[in-house]
Amino acid sequence: MTDAYDPTPDDRFSFGLWTVGNPGRDPFGAATRPVADPNHLVRKLAACGAWGVNLHDDDLVPFGSSAAERDLIVARFKATLVAEGMVVPMATTNLFAHPVFKDGAFTSNDPQVRAFAYAKTMAGIDLGVELGAETYVFWGGREGTEADACRDPRDAVKRMRDAIDFLCGYVKDQGYDLRFALEAKPNEPRGDMYFPTTGHMLHFISTLQHEEMVGVNPEVAHEHMAGLSFVQGVAQAIEAGKLFHIDLNAQRIGRYDQDLRFGSEDLKQAFLLVRLLEGTAAAASASGTGDAGVDHSRYDGPRHFDAHAYRTEDEEGVWHFARGCMRTYKILAARARAFDADPRVQAFTAGAGHGTDVLPLLSGYDADKAAALRALEVDVNAIGARGLGYERLDQLMTEYMLGVAG
Amino acid sequence: MTDAYDPTPDDRFSFGLWTVGNPGRDPFGAATRPVADPNHLVRKLAACGAWGVNLHDDDLVPFGSSAAERDLIVARFKATLVAEGMVVPMATTNLFAHPVFKDGAFTSNDPQVRAFAYAKTMAGIDLGVELGAETYVFWGGREGTEADACRDPRDAVKRMRDAIDFLCGYVKDQGYDLRFALEAKPNEPRGDMYFPTTGHMLHFISTLQHEEMVGVNPEVAHEHMAGLSFVQGVAQAIEAGKLFHIDLNAQRIGRYDQDLRFGSEDLKQAFLLVRLLEGTAAAASASGTGDAGVDHSRYDGPRHFDAHAYRTEDEEGVWHFARGCMRTYKILAARARAFDADPRVQAFTAGAGHGTDVLPLLSGYDADKAAALRALEVDVNAIGARGLGYERLDQLMTEYMLGVAG
Amino acid sequence: MTDAYDPTPDDRFSFGLWTVGNPGRDPFGAATRPVADPNHLVRKLAACGAWGVNLHDDDLVPFGSSAAERDLIVARFKATLVAEGMVVPMATTNLFAHPVFKDGAFTSNDPQVRAFAYAKTMAGIDLGVELGAETYVFWGGREGTEADACRDPRDAVKRMRDAIDFLCGYVKDQGYDLRFALEAKPNEPRGDMYFPTTGHMLHFISTLQHEEMVGVNPEVAHEHMAGLSFVQGVAQAIEAGKLFHIDLNAQRIGRYDQDLRFGSEDLKQAFLLVRLLEGTAAAASASGTGDAGVDHSRYDGPRHFDAHAYRTEDEEGVWHFARGCMRTYKILAARARAFDADPRVQAFTAGAGHGTDVLPLLSGYDADKAAALRALEVDVNAIGARGLGYERLDQLMTEYMLGVAG
Amino acid sequence: MTDAYDPTPDDRFSFGLWTVGNPGRDPFGAATRPVADPNHLVRKLAACGAWGVNLHDDDLVPFGSSAAERDLIVARFKATLVAEGMVVPMATTNLFAHPVFKDGAFTSNDPQVRAFAYAKTMAGIDLGVELGAETYVFWGGREGTEADACRDPRDAVKRMRDAIDFLCGYVKDQGYDLRFALEAKPNEPRGDMYFPTTGHMLHFISTLQHEEMVGVNPEVAHEHMAGLSFVQGVAQAIEAGKLFHIDLNAQRIGRYDQDLRFGSEDLKQAFLLVRLLEGTAAAASASGTGDAGVDHSRYDGPRHFDAHAYRTEDEEGVWHFARGCMRTYKILAARARAFDADPRVQAFTAGAGHGTDVLPLLSGYDADKAAALRALEVDVNAIGARGLGYERLDQLMTEYMLGVAG
Repeated sequence: MTDAYDPTPDDRFSFGLWTVGNPGRDPFGAATRPVADPNHLVRKLAACGAWGVNLHDDDLVPFGSSAAERDLIVARFKATLVAEGMVVPMATTNLFAHPVFKDGAFTSNDPQVRAFAYAKTMAGIDLGVELGAETYVFWGGREGTEADACRDPRDAVKRMRDAIDFLCGYVKDQGYDLRFALEAKPNEPRGDMYFPTTGHMLHFISTLQHEEMVGVNPEVAHEHMAGLSFVQGVAQAIEAGKLFHIDLNAQRIGRYDQDLRFGSEDLKQAFLLVRLLEGTAAAASASGTGDAGVDHSRYDGPRHFDAHAYRTEDEEGVWHFARGCMRTYKILAARARAFDADPRVQAFTAGAGHGTDVLPLLSGYDADKAAALRALEVDVNAIGARGLGYERLDQLMTEYMLGVAG
Repeated sequence: MTDAYDPTPDDRFSFGLWTVGNPGRDPFGAATRPVADPNHLVRKLAACGAWGVNLHDDDLVPFGSSAAERDLIVARFKATLVAEGMVVPMATTNLFAHPVFKDGAFTSNDPQVRAFAYAKTMAGIDLGVELGAETYVFWGGREGTEADACRDPRDAVKRMRDAIDFLCGYVKDQGYDLRFALEAKPNEPRGDMYFPTTGHMLHFISTLQHEEMVGVNPEVAHEHMAGLSFVQGVAQAIEAGKLFHIDLNAQRIGRYDQDLRFGSEDLKQAFLLVRLLEGTAAAASASGTGDAGVDHSRYDGPRHFDAHAYRTEDEEGVWHFARGCMRTYKILAARARAFDADPRVQAFTAGAGHGTDVLPLLSGYDADKAAALRALEVDVNAIGARGLGYERLDQLMTEYMLGVAG
Repeated sequence: MTDAYDPTPDDRFSFGLWTVGNPGRDPFGAATRPVADPNHLVRKLAACGAWGVNLHDDDLVPFGSSAAERDLIVARFKATLVAEGMVVPMATTNLFAHPVFKDGAFTSNDPQVRAFAYAKTMAGIDLGVELGAETYVFWGGREGTEADACRDPRDAVKRMRDAIDFLCGYVKDQGYDLRFALEAKPNEPRGDMYFPTTGHMLHFISTLQHEEMVGVNPEVAHEHMAGLSFVQGVAQAIEAGKLFHIDLNAQRIGRYDQDLRFGSEDLKQAFLLVRLLEGTAAAASASGTGDAGVDHSRYDGPRHFDAHAYRTEDEEGVWHFARGCMRTYKILAARARAFDADPRVQAFTAGAGHGTDVLPLLSGYDADKAAALRALEVDVNAIGARGLGYERLDQLMTEYMLGVAG
Repeated sequence: MTDAYDPTPDDRFSFGLWTVGNPGRDPFGAATRPVADPNHLVRKLAACGAWGVNLHDDDLVPFGSSAAERDLIVARFKATLVAEGMVVPMATTNLFAHPVFKDGAFTSNDPQVRAFAYAKTMAGIDLGVELGAETYVFWGGREGTEADACRDPRDAVKRMRDAIDFLCGYVKDQGYDLRFALEAKPNEPRGDMYFPTTGHMLHFISTLQHEEMVGVNPEVAHEHMAGLSFVQGVAQAIEAGKLFHIDLNAQRIGRYDQDLRFGSEDLKQAFLLVRLLEGTAAAASASGTGDAGVDHSRYDGPRHFDAHAYRTEDEEGVWHFARGCMRTYKILAARARAFDADPRVQAFTAGAGHGTDVLPLLSGYDADKAAALRALEVDVNAIGARGLGYERLDQLMTEYMLGVAG
């Protein structure tokens, strides 16, 4: 396939080393693919049209490597990046695989574990910055519990705050140009994880010492596990200026963490998400009335895929998987542009508001506005009986997705 | 049954008029119980040992009543409250039943609907304050969507903020001693609702003009619908000083909104919640190390039940339901006190931390601490192999719940 | 829109009176649309291109009508059907709306309730047959429980069997040409419903006295509520010769019963379902090897939609909804035909099997086959390392759905 | 703790080698406990009060062992069993861990894989019988799909039937006294698994050649993943005479497969299940009317735990976990006996039926009964208004569970 949907570096697509390098091990079975060399993965990603590669510290530098080993590995990796024209936009710390983290890293009851997690993260930040990362992601894979009596959840909140505040201090002290992006997940591998959704994480950020340098990294699969609307959660983050990074993949509601190829489940949410990120609705008054002050423009960060190929695949299948993620994103982006340019859609959104003369009463309290609102005669029965045309709009959107309309 | 678990007004239990007055209508069937007079409900609640009664504006004063009718109804209701020694700790607005709100109240695309919602809420606030309410709840039953293209979710966020900011202004302007408590729900009756969890709502509050007067009203059923840990979400709210009210009931994960008798599903979460609210773990160092600054004391607000009797019940069943909610709460509170007083539990929590000498390094960044942390030798394999005793602790908790231990 | 996807009676699409007649009432709000006259609905359905209309007894003849009223209503309805060229392929009984059924109909603890349910169903069968129905559906909306101690679930199974056996006897005794189709649902309006999935229902049927005249009526929404694969459940029913009817709609996993427009959620499952029903994969050896004896041909029953328009819609929106259901079905059918005709797909399925020489050993036990199998040398490591190409296949399917491939 | 709830061999509790031997590896982290010697596990289980130990072929005899190695291992294991007085009531085949099974065993598209699965299972059956197993379990861990186009689900059904029919033939030909128990699971490790619930499996069994020797092995966690009522599913199996084995553990709805300590989640379902298995309700007329022919007696098979200790535990924690499973079962059994002996419960069930004079009309169709039923006058409004007392009953049950009542 060679067409308009083939990815190019201009699309700013990135993959984690752990995604295309996933060997296919799961709780019930052994690996089905050999462990891949990171440099090989970079070369293959570049050949696929990707722009960036992200990593956990241990993805590149095995846990327990000496300083000399680390430097050798990093030097070789940097050379490969240069040769392939690839960047490392994001890095993160593996705080979940080693048994020392079995009951949490930053929220562990054991201060020594927390101390080790701080130190490992500082080293990971150094590594990320050395490779050019502008965003540092925190996913607290073990920050949670199955036996709730083991820890007061308020202590967990406080410990997490201490950790992020400390590490923000470190970044500022080093003069690094780096932002943090916190990633929520409701459960797995822990029974219940602290800050289970992007909403909880956004709130936590509002309590930090350096909140301006901390945002979120929402993941499709993690919000879908809890059955939440991903697009609404991401929109809340964007509206607050906090969408610093994003993890694209696919997932069915109420299941184990699937990390499927982007768009391979729930095409509607995928379409709505791409539409939100690409800002295709921005031209139209998006909700039918002039809500001044809301920025509907395009998200300008990386389009990162945190997914992996089915366990049934060999390496060839892995690259089909990677291309599939990127192609589906581009197809949906094209469909979103066409949908939002359709005069019927623009007429719909432009015409949705009635009685816009009351708009000035609705923001900025004063007693006169309150009095005017209470005196207003609203024909509630007439408004209640008025059809809103949403079945037509949604069907039109479906037909755009299916490539029939437009 | 007359025993130590029978409720008394000192327990500060409250019910909504809509809960014990629920007539048993559902999407597939007609009402099975007659509509009850609010004054009758107050008398029966008082006889059951409840302390307070809460209400939507329309629960007491039917939609569309004249001012004279309203005043008569309110006067009679106040007389009943006095006669029965009952209070109205909380009031709220019905912004979901009338067709005018079919696509939202504060987030509707139609400014006239928003205007009407503001006015109805101001009137509801007046009513609540007249009845003595100290908390005003906002549950946006229609603030959401099925056809996502109908509205940009960022506009919904902004509109909700405009509304809450405006209404805070109204309360302050009136000189009312009233706080707002926002209630999240992930879905039903809308396909997806904005601010779907307590976490999203806590974040939204952090963006308000008068955030100090706005907190949350988490509901067991609403968080359980999404499969989230209720106790962890409530703990995050408490830690932030934002638990202003609470809705107690029971619900199975991933279902329609059940509003079951408190404790009738997921006794473990119910136990953990009561333990958190009652502060029984406060005496022990709750997580094994001195995390200075976290307040583990008792929640002092109303214990409100937002639940209703099965549709199979007549009025007698309704009062069995109400007593059951309160009795189970008290039984679990007694069990929580006993569990947290058990020397094995206290020894567990006291002994959980190792290497507490590193504690001073973990909060408040400075370069020396960072250097000390990076120089620290941590025996990760030894720590990883050390058993944490959580199976024993959780089994002990189970046996306390079952009344075997203690 | 007038194109190849506009519905015609040849497509055999049907709707329930209760679907296009749904007034938009839900647990939190009043109706938003007036109750429609059944004859009007038939005329409008015919104008939309539908072929059939289905009904509950009470949809047409209000509960409690006299015999004379009933006959008048039925005569008028039959005249409308004839005038519009519409058929009634399926009928069913409302055994859930009236309070008498609040704890079940056929499984109620009260024998009088069961007796009344038998009688109401016999009358409903008579009505259905009079209108020409060939299929009679049973959905046990109240057959379940919230308080499990109220009834031994084995008694519920036995009571349900008694009822279906009895009613089969009635149909045979009357000489009606009618088959039964049983519809499963996991919960709502009851906490847990007996025979919660199509699998449970298929098993129950295998224990009936006249099992040959009883099959299933699976509903998309009901299986999706429990997060099950609808297409696999339907396939199990087809393989057993038991798919007698089907309810098409859309639903998100783990939510209240949404009954959304077909294809408006989970387009992938909708595509796979249409592909299964239309039998487009039949030409190719569907799974890569000759599995003699499996019939992959087209389902020839009605394509019935059990869904309703959003509560935000007026009547115009209802007909947009109805046309949308049918159009999306036809678009997906066209895409399925194209996908299955693609040489890459046919090559894939034809080439999937390896070592087909062992096929004769795999069915029909005898000792020689057992010995041959145990002696067989299989290179498990080579097979384990072989990539299966499923990412490529699934991405190709996605692109067919999106209208890019083909 | 030494009390009436400590387990003894008379309780017939069994554990899998893979449960107490689980090393704590998960998708995000390495093992936290060393791999244990099976003989050691047997000795420790005996010391805990267990009666039996179950195994996959590979749990005892590593994949790829020579015949001589196998015989040595088996001989040593049998000696340990004898020395400890432990039995092996159940055995099963590991058809999921090796990459050769990555796309299924009995349903693989590759006939060689199916052939290998047949051969491995025959060897596993031989091993199980040699160790004394009376039940052979089939859990098709890889029988499913993520990319549905790879295989027609009807072919999967047929292949599974061929396999079970063949293996039944093998058992009969060998003269083994062995029954098969099929275990359903909705998903994980596959996206969707064939025969996802006990209901689907029961139906599949009804289509087998030797259905009399095949039953089900329902697992708490597997049905809870889909949010289904476990107790109702097990009851349907018992009513059909098909409960051949059972897997006890705990699980939260809509999550990854947790395999938690029995009773550590959803105590109510655990109580109801123990009550069903122990037959404590049998003495009372369980549902209020004489439903002749339903057997409410005790399940007499093993009480098998398919669960494992938290990953936070060391070996000591594993044995706390094992004892906890058994103790909670025994506590709940005692509570169930007390509840069902309470005169209020017996009065409730005895008095639930009204109008039992119509009972003879409700089974065994004839025209006279039909006429009598249609002539019957039922006061539907009076019955609809009658309260059923289920809130009182359920609260009483809650208080029995909590150890307050009785």
